[in-house]
Amino acid sequence: MQRLDETIGRIERIDYSLAEKTQHRLDNLTKPRGSLGRLEELANQIVAITRNDAPQTRNKVIFTMAGDHGIAREGVSAFPPEVTAQMVYNFLRHGAGINVLARHVGARVVVVDMGVAADLNPHPELIARKIGYGTQNILHGPAMTKDEAIESVETGMEVFEAELQKGVDLAGTGDMGIGNTTPSSAIAAVITGKTIEEATGRGTGIDDETLVHKIDVIKRIIDMNKPDPKDALDVLHKVGGYEIGGLVGVVLAAASKRVPVVIDGLISGAAALIAYQLEPKAKDYMIASHCSVERGHRIILDYLGLEPLLDLHLRLGEGTGAALGLSLVEAAIKILTEMATFQSASVSERIAK
Amino acid sequence: MQRLDETIGRIERIDYSLAEKTQHRLDNLTKPRGSLGRLEELANQIVAITRNDAPQTRNKVIFTMAGDHGIAREGVSAFPPEVTAQMVYNFLRHGAGINVLARHVGARVVVVDMGVAADLNPHPELIARKIGYGTQNILHGPAMTKDEAIESVETGMEVFEAELQKGVDLAGTGDMGIGNTTPSSAIAAVITGKTIEEATGRGTGIDDETLVHKIDVIKRIIDMNKPDPKDALDVLHKVGGYEIGGLVGVVLAAASKRVPVVIDGLISGAAALIAYQLEPKAKDYMIASHCSVERGHRIILDYLGLEPLLDLHLRLGEGTGAALGLSLVEAAIKILTEMATFQSASVSERIAK
Repeated sequence: MQRLDETIGRIERIDYSLAEKTQHRLDNLTKPRGSLGRLEELANQIVAITRNDAPQTRNKVIFTMAGDHGIAREGVSAFPPEVTAQMVYNFLRHGAGINVLARHVGARVVVVDMGVAADLNPHPELIARKIGYGTQNILHGPAMTKDEAIESVETGMEVFEAELQKGVDLAGTGDMGIGNTTPSSAIAAVITGKTIEEATGRGTGIDDETLVHKIDVIKRIIDMNKPDPKDALDVLHKVGGYEIGGLVGVVLAAASKRVPVVIDGLISGAAALIAYQLEPKAKDYMIASHCSVERGHRIILDYLGLEPLLDLHLRLGEGTGAALGLSLVEAAIKILTEMATFQSASVSERIAK
Repeated sequence: MQRLDETIGRIERIDYSLAEKTQHRLDNLTKPRGSLGRLEELANQIVAITRNDAPQTRNKVIFTMAGDHGIAREGVSAFPPEVTAQMVYNFLRHGAGINVLARHVGARVVVVDMGVAADLNPHPELIARKIGYGTQNILHGPAMTKDEAIESVETGMEVFEAELQKGVDLAGTGDMGIGNTTPSSAIAAVITGKTIEEATGRGTGIDDETLVHKIDVIKRIIDMNKPDPKDALDVLHKVGGYEIGGLVGVVLAAASKRVPVVIDGLISGAAALIAYQLEPKAKDYMIASHCSVERGHRIILDYLGLEPLLDLHLRLGEGTGAALGLSLVEAAIKILTEMATFQSASVSERIAK
């Protein structure tokens, strides 16, 4: 786990030394002070992350990582497991929700096979980094070996760093994996200490009866595996997923390279939570794009102390919320860099009291 | 007021006859049913408004209307009145917040002088429709004559209809006018029946002492003018503003032409409230972009029963919130029109129970 340790070791506190200068500029733009609210806060955060008072926005990249889950065999999802692979092909044909929204906001989507339970046809846009053919059924044992957990995180780091060569000004996270709200809710409950009921939602749209079953399954998963809440890699290895591990790596690598990372919903949130447990400083590089309908997401956001930008009752995943969030981050940066000042526009300033 | 009556007369109930077909399409897109939450609701609303199952998004137009206010002489704003004209020039040089955000979302800004208290230099992008050189001081009498109130609304309608010739697929509203949160709060309090305290905020950023003064001023304004809550034109004439009247016209004209109209913050909200009082059916064409920090905005949204898309603590006006809202509406339409279906993408549907 050399890469993991080294990457974590490179994550620094974000740098507010430019904050005064940034705030001075924001206050001198032709608007009442603070009147752009969270856009101004975002601008400050992005400058502090990037240490650049004119941050770039051209390369917006959403990392959508896919993996299958042995637990999907336990009737916890409304969709059959083969949908994971089918949706990867849909991503590659640009027909999915994430493709539409990424195109809308001018982001590119990096599709990664972290552990789909099928041999996928090669495709120029598919990054094939399969760790395994889906996780094991976590009702009966750990999702993956400890080595695989580390490998999944380090693979996510490698994918991010390779993409960084092409340019990544702003990153976003996304996931695909039938059954993956179950491990994500388990991760949320274990790490935050909240109850499984508080952490568990309807995923792709299960009914009341199936929700009761899902909660029972997650209780049994945690009883069986006894993940150590203080050891995030133990949690990932026992009740996680390959795509979740990959996203942990993306978040940590982004932080280590001082790239802002916009977090999607529950599954991305579970990955962000593990990343935070591994290195709390990573949190300052995160922006919560939205609050998912999935109950577990709210408890993750509260635990991390992140306030989401949007609340549009989304629960699709794939990075769809992150795409919309990226557009707001870009708007914030453009406010900072493109607006006129009182001086440049010859506009009178506020009346001195 | 023939144009006003005719325009209102053309506003029809929005048409949900395509709703079943639209919902069928949304449910067949490659995502769990309902998983795009409010984006799906928006798509349904836009189809019902436009009666087009593939609504266009190319021409997104924000109508930013400017006017001055005699009440600004009473120390209710943190900025001097000359800023209204200065900001109009800033709009025309594309340096203001609305320019940056409109450019970000691909919208064009239509800048209208409805009643700036200065002779503005002609400019190819400035629509000069001045009704008067600022309103009268509403502490001492009505803002404008009844005829001017009607003229301001009808002028807004004409501006919208002229722009419609160039193409308006989605409209947004915006305002500029030093002092205009005072009449807007007065309108909100009078029409919704809420207290002046509940309707009054800090505008461009006044301190506690000035807020107390502003609330007192608004009380005296309403005592002096006694606007009739049941007569929206009486409210506009007595405590309104030229740009507010213009925006009433934009909203009603958009509704009459079946164009969705994205409402900005408090001032646009006050205009939407008057439009609703004049013709309740206009409400179905409205989309609330965001919830402003300005207190009066929340009571307007509640009265209208509109749930804002964003809550980013904005309070700038100009149409800045509307610009961000327009982008979300466009995203919703693209979801409807660009995503693959389960059939077209060969993705398995949910498991039948």
